Amino acid sequence: MKAKVFVTFKEGILDPQGKAVQHSLETIGFGEVLNVRQGKLFEVALDDGLTKDDAKKKVTEMAEKLLANPVMENFEVVIE
Amino acid sequence: MKAKVFVTFKEGILDPQGKAVQHSLETIGFGEVLNVRQGKLFEVALDDGLTKDDAKKKVTEMAEKLLANPVMENFEVVIE
Repeated sequence: MKAKVFVTFKEGILDPQGKAVQHSLETIGFGEVLNVRQGKLFEVALDDGLTKDDAKKKVTEMAEKLLANPVMENFEVVIE
Repeated sequence: MKAKVFVTFKEGILDPQGKAVQHSLETIGFGEVLNVRQGKLFEVALDDGLTKDDAKKKVTEMAEKLLANPVMENFEVVIE
């Protein structure tokens, strides 16, 4: 079973990496870009013995404990 | 208009960051984890004057030119 975890900064948290990408895109001619935020993506392969519900619970726990920083980041878990 | 770009390493490309996360998850008790791959996520806010098709084309161009390294990485563009 595969899970994806999307980790993004919370609203209001500065994202200098995203800003750098935004400026680079503008510099090479993409004037239609208004804003860029950069986040992280984790693809987690899990033991097939888990049910979908158990997988979702486990991966949510992984995100809370290790993959995301709950003070600054939001996360979303998708089981595939 | 908002676009998301998901950038992941191609199959066969080593991902030491993903491996480090995998080992950390195992260390804190998540034995059901078989593999972890880490990727990047870009949220791009675009001028509302663009059509969905134009936005997809533009953002694909951004990914090819700057957001992803086509030698080592795959990307997927989603327009929201």
